[in-house]
Amino acid sequence: MKLGAIEAGGTKFVCAVSDDNIKIEDREQFPTTTPEETMAQVFAYFEQHPVDAIGIGSFGPVSLNEDADDYGHITNTPKLAWKNYNFLGAMKAHFDIPFYFTTDVNVAAYGEYKAGAGRGKKNILYWTVGTGVGASYIQHGKFLQGYSHPEMGHILLRPDERDNGFKGVCPYHGNCFEGLAAGLSIEKRFGKKGYEIDPSDEFWEIEAKYIAQACVNATLILRPDIIIFGGGVMKQSQLFPQIQAEFVKQLADYVDFPEITGYIKHVALGDDAGITGALMLAKKALQEIKN
Amino acid sequence: MKLGAIEAGGTKFVCAVSDDNIKIEDREQFPTTTPEETMAQVFAYFEQHPVDAIGIGSFGPVSLNEDADDYGHITNTPKLAWKNYNFLGAMKAHFDIPFYFTTDVNVAAYGEYKAGAGRGKKNILYWTVGTGVGASYIQHGKFLQGYSHPEMGHILLRPDERDNGFKGVCPYHGNCFEGLAAGLSIEKRFGKKGYEIDPSDEFWEIEAKYIAQACVNATLILRPDIIIFGGGVMKQSQLFPQIQAEFVKQLADYVDFPEITGYIKHVALGDDAGITGALMLAKKALQEIKN
Repeated sequence: MKLGAIEAGGTKFVCAVSDDNIKIEDREQFPTTTPEETMAQVFAYFEQHPVDAIGIGSFGPVSLNEDADDYGHITNTPKLAWKNYNFLGAMKAHFDIPFYFTTDVNVAAYGEYKAGAGRGKKNILYWTVGTGVGASYIQHGKFLQGYSHPEMGHILLRPDERDNGFKGVCPYHGNCFEGLAAGLSIEKRFGKKGYEIDPSDEFWEIEAKYIAQACVNATLILRPDIIIFGGGVMKQSQLFPQIQAEFVKQLADYVDFPEITGYIKHVALGDDAGITGALMLAKKALQEIKN
Repeated sequence: MKLGAIEAGGTKFVCAVSDDNIKIEDREQFPTTTPEETMAQVFAYFEQHPVDAIGIGSFGPVSLNEDADDYGHITNTPKLAWKNYNFLGAMKAHFDIPFYFTTDVNVAAYGEYKAGAGRGKKNILYWTVGTGVGASYIQHGKFLQGYSHPEMGHILLRPDERDNGFKGVCPYHGNCFEGLAAGLSIEKRFGKKGYEIDPSDEFWEIEAKYIAQACVNATLILRPDIIIFGGGVMKQSQLFPQIQAEFVKQLADYVDFPEITGYIKHVALGDDAGITGALMLAKKALQEIKN
């Protein structure tokens, strides 16, 4: 059995093939340009590397409502060439195999849930803090999904008094979580990238406070067993003890949570989380067809 | 078939009996004093009115983790006589019938989900804004439950600049949602109850802004199909159009949601939501035993 994965990001697509133990045998990447160009490369890849099922994690927003006409489409994206593109439909027209279609953040969360920092936990909250903020919640193996998929990156936070009245960079909300704490906000404040800022800079305390505040609200609403962070900003390892300490302070012992250093953790799979999760979801799609 | 319900609140217990169509045949209430006194009245009630199953909605915090030693206990409550009281265990010791044990907020949410404002919806968020703030989330008939039950009443909100630097009244967090917007905070600001304040007072705009902010964060995290509000403060009907308008403004078209006047709604069952939900959960417990 061969499994396929597509990690469709806003800047690049990664395609991969594994055996049924999720051992990756081949991987290739292409720039995200137009559907015509990029998808032609995807089709060619899986014609050269035939697989029995494909897991897809797509940049979004995407429609995940199986009852809706636009299920499997990329919907209202600012990447105009991809707006309303029927991603899953195009794949199905080329390959008569089972698919699992979800968000790019969901596939990475699933990888961490099954094989990474969330292994053995029942309820995991996964945040990625990079250029923007994405999130996924998995309960007993299922993605949280209501009217549509969560967009927790945009929850409204309290600005910190030490943040010099910074208004945030989110074009929708200004100072939501993403607007205050993602990579673009750091560039806006400092004129340089997060990794160029000294790890001892006071700014990281402010950053940790925002991230902790998001963790407090998500903890009170969801009660996860673990909160896992990935994404470029979270490679600043000094943030973790700061977030943990701030979380304890802000939650103020109101509810129980697991031991803090095991509760707020860095990803274990690194940049492989997405592809690993997509391969595992391909396997899940295949098993569900068989049952 | 006879169904029983206990709505165990911090000030009073309500016990009721219905037929299997949830037609209430008898109802009685007792003040919440000590477990010895109050529970003796509960036992006597159900000895006089034998039932086939009982649904219990208890004030909390309660342990709902069926694998934990303290499952069915009231845990860390400020009502010291009830701290660590084994509520479910005491009921089981008296009556050899199926029980459904959950929070007081969950039973009210379940009533609204099955027979009230949430009827026909798949994913409902229920908030009660009274003396404090409670919340419940039901997805496809199941209560959201992770490491423990949600405590969404304490999410951290942004203070409003028109709120005169009010610090909130929550003993844990100061200005969390409950600390800024529940009944006790209104009394602290005005020295009188919410219903004594003119419905045209500017304060209701501030109150609506806080409630809308909680709705925005919960919408982005959970993506419910409907948000239902009960509790004493929400009897101020002028709040609903204000909350709806503020919600639309704060969310800023970032994600889709159902038509707004059908999305943020008042409870339909009023003060009967809790007892109705508890009776329905008794029925569910009985059906699960039979299957």
